[in-house]
Amino acid sequence: MDMKYDFGMVGLGVMGRNFILNVSDNGFTAYGNDLDPEKVNALIEEGGDISKVNASTDSKIFLEALAIPRKIMLLVPAGKIVDMVIESLLPNLDEGDLIIDGGNSFYTDTDRREAYLSKKGINFFGAGVSGGAKGARKGPSIMPGGNREAYQHVKPIFEAVAAKYHGEPCVAYLGPKSAGNYVKMVHNGIEYGLMQLTSEIYDVLKKGADYNNDELHQTFDTWNKGRLQSFLVEITSEIFLQVDNLGDGRLVDKILDKAKQKGTGKWTSQNAMDLGIPVPSIDIAVSMREISALKDERIEADNLYDRPAVQQMDKTAMKKMTEEALYFSFIITYAQGLHQLADASKEYEYNLNLAQIAKIWRAGCIIRAGLLADISEAFEANPSLPNLLLSATFVEKVQGTVNSARELVAFGAKNGIPLPGLSNSLTYFDAYTSSRLPLNLIQAQRDYFGSHTYERLDREGIFHTEWEQE
Amino acid sequence: MDMKYDFGMVGLGVMGRNFILNVSDNGFTAYGNDLDPEKVNALIEEGGDISKVNASTDSKIFLEALAIPRKIMLLVPAGKIVDMVIESLLPNLDEGDLIIDGGNSFYTDTDRREAYLSKKGINFFGAGVSGGAKGARKGPSIMPGGNREAYQHVKPIFEAVAAKYHGEPCVAYLGPKSAGNYVKMVHNGIEYGLMQLTSEIYDVLKKGADYNNDELHQTFDTWNKGRLQSFLVEITSEIFLQVDNLGDGRLVDKILDKAKQKGTGKWTSQNAMDLGIPVPSIDIAVSMREISALKDERIEADNLYDRPAVQQMDKTAMKKMTEEALYFSFIITYAQGLHQLADASKEYEYNLNLAQIAKIWRAGCIIRAGLLADISEAFEANPSLPNLLLSATFVEKVQGTVNSARELVAFGAKNGIPLPGLSNSLTYFDAYTSSRLPLNLIQAQRDYFGSHTYERLDREGIFHTEWEQE
Repeated sequence: MDMKYDFGMVGLGVMGRNFILNVSDNGFTAYGNDLDPEKVNALIEEGGDISKVNASTDSKIFLEALAIPRKIMLLVPAGKIVDMVIESLLPNLDEGDLIIDGGNSFYTDTDRREAYLSKKGINFFGAGVSGGAKGARKGPSIMPGGNREAYQHVKPIFEAVAAKYHGEPCVAYLGPKSAGNYVKMVHNGIEYGLMQLTSEIYDVLKKGADYNNDELHQTFDTWNKGRLQSFLVEITSEIFLQVDNLGDGRLVDKILDKAKQKGTGKWTSQNAMDLGIPVPSIDIAVSMREISALKDERIEADNLYDRPAVQQMDKTAMKKMTEEALYFSFIITYAQGLHQLADASKEYEYNLNLAQIAKIWRAGCIIRAGLLADISEAFEANPSLPNLLLSATFVEKVQGTVNSARELVAFGAKNGIPLPGLSNSLTYFDAYTSSRLPLNLIQAQRDYFGSHTYERLDREGIFHTEWEQE
Repeated sequence: MDMKYDFGMVGLGVMGRNFILNVSDNGFTAYGNDLDPEKVNALIEEGGDISKVNASTDSKIFLEALAIPRKIMLLVPAGKIVDMVIESLLPNLDEGDLIIDGGNSFYTDTDRREAYLSKKGINFFGAGVSGGAKGARKGPSIMPGGNREAYQHVKPIFEAVAAKYHGEPCVAYLGPKSAGNYVKMVHNGIEYGLMQLTSEIYDVLKKGADYNNDELHQTFDTWNKGRLQSFLVEITSEIFLQVDNLGDGRLVDKILDKAKQKGTGKWTSQNAMDLGIPVPSIDIAVSMREISALKDERIEADNLYDRPAVQQMDKTAMKKMTEEALYFSFIITYAQGLHQLADASKEYEYNLNLAQIAKIWRAGCIIRAGLLADISEAFEANPSLPNLLLSATFVEKVQGTVNSARELVAFGAKNGIPLPGLSNSLTYFDAYTSSRLPLNLIQAQRDYFGSHTYERLDREGIFHTEWEQE
């Protein structure tokens, strides 16, 4: 074969197929590989010209078709399959070839694979890809991590296919080892938080001010033109319009209230706990998906307990309050996720540039939002900012909206409308901005029953008291 | 040596020394072992009679002194040291000997050790011990798991030394493998939750109704005589009286508000997420210890943000409201922990008896409380109760107190007093008792951007929609 292709893709599911067509649209030739001949044929057909987009079920033919150093992306399910694909490619790779895992692999798996392959002279990248099927086709946000020099080989392709924000590509080399997968994991944790928050606002607008689907559409649509502008607010506005093709009315009302999860939100929470960084707005989003799954228990419990009658609020007042509360809690959720990234950057030696991460999230990905431009500016102004809440430009945004969060959380508590994401955002804010917290009592308890010692406010040292008992 | 000792202990720190003296008080002879000669001598001196309590720094002498099958408890720090002690004992053990790890070992470590030792004919137990130094001396709650038959050898000793609740010993064989360590882990998770809740009540009594330390003492003391009767409420009441020997006033006001943690609360939260069981009242207690540790950031943030002036409440009204809210949130926290145990019992094949677990928690341990008698009755009435909230006897207790939790959470939200444990308990309750939650929107979003599919309320099946865009 004379002509060699610029880019290879293993896994021609909807994401892989769309990504490869995107590569082709941008003037690079691409070759796909999948065990499923239907997927191979579908890609060839959709590509239209095998000199630009070709594919094969045969791994060896696939590898022979690629230009050296090979740039091979995997878009296959995270886990064992990634290892199997790597092993199947390995005998026919050459030193200096580049494998890019584009799935949501757990970051320690990426570290293990990178160490294993680097010994064999193969470059391995973990690259988070966000934007769903449409993003893969039209421009995703790409979060690659691995060997900095090797990244140069794939940089032109990634910059071409990535989403653009005012012309800037939403991709950048993020750091060594698993930096890319880690950043994508936290991206998804933030996504969990934002989705939970929008669902709470939807609930309280409906129950607390009798918003119907048209009004909900209008409200989210208006918000999407303001400071809440974001992909999730935008698609939420559209969701309320979708008619149900299997019945009367709108589809959203027919969807079962059991939210599934694929693990990245859980990983974010679990890892934040290992780091010791509080991300309660993400934790609670994971918990709420779990509670939603307990539908049978919920139905049983609902029959056992009375619920307060909801005090209806004026629609306009509710709209203002919810807009401010949502903006407030979005900021808090980004702040928590970025706080986690700042700490992980030290712990795992990723040397992350948070301003740059916020920049590549401005377009293409699921958590893209107008806010991210402000966030990237805050970290550009102070790259070592430990928490977004400490940025002067955010003080104003937060201070101006927190009172609505207070009112809304109080409204939910009194009226039996669960707003756990909002209340965790608020209590996080109130705790994080408290120079004194009541956890001196916890240290006293720990010293009382377990002699765990304590520190003092007024002098240095470690103290233990033989507590007097009545 | 003619006389053989009934019980051996490796690790003569405060817990090990106290436990061995407790064993001796109950008519069993005991032999201690520690590398530190000072600890060995201290034990011999405190024991007073080497025919009853003896000790040695020499592991071989220690093992020769023990009756066969040997019953050897380890009270050493969890982690590598446990493995090192096991390896050092192993060459001189006999088949059928019993090693009992009394520390807070992670449950998978216990499973690994049990499998390793059972191949060599040695029985290995993970046994959680709660009650602190005083409990170890006067009667702890003991949570053993391992081989059921081998447990018989140590049962008489454990039943003698354990705390008694109306004559019933607070120890029972809990299940195979790591059942004991797992139950102790969740015990500690609940402990984290209850401690966080008491600290919030302390805070709101002080800030919201100007309670001083004497009034706080009085309040917790009164509560401890009512339905809130519990070890943690009791010691909290005493903590407020403790004078500061290094300065004026009460000690509690001098203690630094940075709460430390040793990991069991975090493990509980992380493992609950793996199981998919929501325990937000425990999660947030972990988060709050993390936030408390960020003291420097908190001071900086406090200077940047305004806080609402606290609307003072009447002291009597506040006392009633806080008592009810604390009782409500204690119930919710136990409910979450027991929910996790019920699920773990299936997942890890522990075959736990939740009524029995609640019983052995009624005395000796840190989370002992009057409530546990009611809880054990609820699980005796229905051993397969999935969640305490579904028990008829608890409906009344919860329904009668939830309104105060509503008022208090609203008060905290409006006045800038962070009550995250209380609000997570309330939103958990409101979500768990909702037959419909707004997470249908999250499923719609997931299907919109990721083709993740959804289920419907009105018919079986898995659905995907090509969502219309404006």
